[in-house]
Amino acid sequence: MTLPRRLAAEGIGSLLLAATVIGSGVMAERLSGGNIAIALLANTAATVAVLAVLSALLGPVSAAHFNPAVSLIQAFRNVLPWREAAAYVLVQVVGCCAGAILAHAMFELPLLQASTHVRAGAPQWLAEAVATFGLLLVVLGHRRPQDAPWMVAAWIGAAYWFTASTSFANPAITIARALSDTFAGIRPQDVPAFIAAQFVGALIALAVARPLFAGRRVAPVESESGTIHHEVRS
Amino acid sequence: MTLPRRLAAEGIGSLLLAATVIGSGVMAERLSGGNIAIALLANTAATVAVLAVLSALLGPVSAAHFNPAVSLIQAFRNVLPWREAAAYVLVQVVGCCAGAILAHAMFELPLLQASTHVRAGAPQWLAEAVATFGLLLVVLGHRRPQDAPWMVAAWIGAAYWFTASTSFANPAITIARALSDTFAGIRPQDVPAFIAAQFVGALIALAVARPLFAGRRVAPVESESGTIHHEVRS
Amino acid sequence: MTLPRRLAAEGIGSLLLAATVIGSGVMAERLSGGNIAIALLANTAATVAVLAVLSALLGPVSAAHFNPAVSLIQAFRNVLPWREAAAYVLVQVVGCCAGAILAHAMFELPLLQASTHVRAGAPQWLAEAVATFGLLLVVLGHRRPQDAPWMVAAWIGAAYWFTASTSFANPAITIARALSDTFAGIRPQDVPAFIAAQFVGALIALAVARPLFAGRRVAPVESESGTIHHEVRS
Amino acid sequence: MTLPRRLAAEGIGSLLLAATVIGSGVMAERLSGGNIAIALLANTAATVAVLAVLSALLGPVSAAHFNPAVSLIQAFRNVLPWREAAAYVLVQVVGCCAGAILAHAMFELPLLQASTHVRAGAPQWLAEAVATFGLLLVVLGHRRPQDAPWMVAAWIGAAYWFTASTSFANPAITIARALSDTFAGIRPQDVPAFIAAQFVGALIALAVARPLFAGRRVAPVESESGTIHHEVRS
Repeated sequence: MTLPRRLAAEGIGSLLLAATVIGSGVMAERLSGGNIAIALLANTAATVAVLAVLSALLGPVSAAHFNPAVSLIQAFRNVLPWREAAAYVLVQVVGCCAGAILAHAMFELPLLQASTHVRAGAPQWLAEAVATFGLLLVVLGHRRPQDAPWMVAAWIGAAYWFTASTSFANPAITIARALSDTFAGIRPQDVPAFIAAQFVGALIALAVARPLFAGRRVAPVESESGTIHHEVRS
Repeated sequence: MTLPRRLAAEGIGSLLLAATVIGSGVMAERLSGGNIAIALLANTAATVAVLAVLSALLGPVSAAHFNPAVSLIQAFRNVLPWREAAAYVLVQVVGCCAGAILAHAMFELPLLQASTHVRAGAPQWLAEAVATFGLLLVVLGHRRPQDAPWMVAAWIGAAYWFTASTSFANPAITIARALSDTFAGIRPQDVPAFIAAQFVGALIALAVARPLFAGRRVAPVESESGTIHHEVRS
Repeated sequence: MTLPRRLAAEGIGSLLLAATVIGSGVMAERLSGGNIAIALLANTAATVAVLAVLSALLGPVSAAHFNPAVSLIQAFRNVLPWREAAAYVLVQVVGCCAGAILAHAMFELPLLQASTHVRAGAPQWLAEAVATFGLLLVVLGHRRPQDAPWMVAAWIGAAYWFTASTSFANPAITIARALSDTFAGIRPQDVPAFIAAQFVGALIALAVARPLFAGRRVAPVESESGTIHHEVRS
Repeated sequence: MTLPRRLAAEGIGSLLLAATVIGSGVMAERLSGGNIAIALLANTAATVAVLAVLSALLGPVSAAHFNPAVSLIQAFRNVLPWREAAAYVLVQVVGCCAGAILAHAMFELPLLQASTHVRAGAPQWLAEAVATFGLLLVVLGHRRPQDAPWMVAAWIGAAYWFTASTSFANPAITIARALSDTFAGIRPQDVPAFIAAQFVGALIALAVARPLFAGRRVAPVESESGTIHHEVRS
């Protein structure tokens, strides 16, 4: 797969993922008559469903990161060259921001907004670290490639509810949410601490995954060219 | 598979799909005590479940389109002859309309109705284009045939919530919904613009899918005759 | 598999299925504060989940019918001897009734009750015929045995919402529900027409499935003894 | 797999499982505006999702018990040495209690609490026995290892609703819930009877599973070392 094609896949996936997270939040809040649990249930279901679909669809093209924390950890592990990881991250952030704008356009909202939704404090940062820790553990430790889509999606869906921050777990999505003064938003000034917490969680996952999954081979996958490849975990 | 058998599969699938979309909307609205989010959650769950089942059940017979946008794009790609695509479309429209009537019969409503539900405006049309774009991207880009049912269903389920139009994404279903003055309805005069937007989205998906998935082979499937076939993407 | 073992599997499965249908209805009604849509959503989710689990767990033992309509159709198709089908039906009815009693015991209700929930009229009977038609179409037409659990469960889940009768689709469950004056109940005098409608739907499915799926082989399954068997559809 | 590595997997899994059960209960109760059914729906969805993910992720390392009832039954069956089972149980209890503390930290609650939620009486104990019976039946009887995650998760999800006790079905989780005076809590003095009921259910499942699944081999799995192993059921 050429880099431009992989970047296209990352861009389309990030766009549709962010449009879903933000758009379904708008729809859910409008329809739920003030019951936030119902709104978050709908927001969760839409996010889980689209995340699984996009991962299965675009995984064979770009590995379906849609998430700078994943791309940078894979660079750290020498799975992705640093130059390519930087390009991935750029496209993910641009794609997610475009997704916020697309959601606003569909729901007749101002295209560019600044969120006023306060999300701060140590408990929230702990929550982001836990959510991103679990996400990276799934990314680094799952055994059969065809299981990654549902496992990633189910983790995020659970973490929407059991972490106090509703599990952003993705720096690109966090930046895009700052551009939306809606259900899924976060104040711009709260973004840096969220992203820092996400990277702390990702690094802890890397440290835990090495010994926990050491020596395990990923189950063989039929590659595009018809040959079989294994990834040896180190 | 002979054409009559494939048309029977398309007709039965379209009938049950439309009956589910419209019938579950009626049930959900009756029971939800005015909370539209709860009604749409139930409507979404029923649609997702039946779409996955019908795709898995009838896919091996007719490819389980149940959707003129899919059939016409497959004709455009020379996967389906234009004559057969025309027959598919006719059966899909008739089947979906029969499904609306079946839903009305089950819920003791007038069998033939004209919807008064206004669905119009550029944001709604954008939403329909986005929803159909994603649907066709899944249809054209998924790698393992056994994944198509859940991927198509999960996409539609997410798009019910993150697009402002609740994702019709299907011209035959759109026509059938115009015949039902219930939760899922759409005014007859709003139908043409919805269908136009759906085809715009489908064509954009075709343009994007060609380079994005070029050269990828669909994973082998055991065919009915016991031989293995591949579809080479172009 | 010996017949006693298969009957044990049918009995346990029917017991737990009926306990779930009735017990989750009681729990849902108690907690939902009068919003019937929320109660039915919970009732649906529990039913779908347990039906998929029991089908996957006990399918390799008894084929996991838990449903006289399925067993009698399989006898009609010469897949199950009539004598065995009769034993299946007896165990299914006894198991489902025991499940109703178990649910009542868990929720501190009188163990034996007679439902006062009216469910009657041609639209309801049409709904039961449609629900059972779809169920049997899935049973007779699915291609990969490992897909049967989720397909059956998803169909029933959708039909809870899109049919006006909330899709009993099972004579043994219908009889057990008559013993419970709770959310899932049905008046004893309404039972015979429901069961008749279910068999009408099942027979139509048999008539449709023959030509629609004719000549298709079920995908091979590894049998218990390590050999491969096919079922040729006729 | 070395024992320390397996214990690490059990500890991480138990931690995240308990944090999900308790944390999602807190979130759900806070957001649901007093509608307990909506709160339990969200609590169920989060539990089901995380249980499936953790089972699939850590199953290849430690068999993903996260549950003393499972570990002790496997010791009883000579699948796990008693010494190792004791270590599993210790780690599970400590991990689950740590999960309760983690949930409290994320939601700004006192880290150590004593629940005041009364859960007692014969119907509740019957419910725990039924829930644990079904769980062990799934653990002992499922045929394909890759199905265990969804089957275990779906059973627990159904049992949250159809058993009167909301299906704890796990002594370690029961102890951890006693440390949380929140939605998912249980009074410390109610714990022993719950755990006793769980073991009764587990032992009945063992007695039923032996004849029901006797002689069945678990479908082959590719082991870590590349060889194929079977477990013969006895």
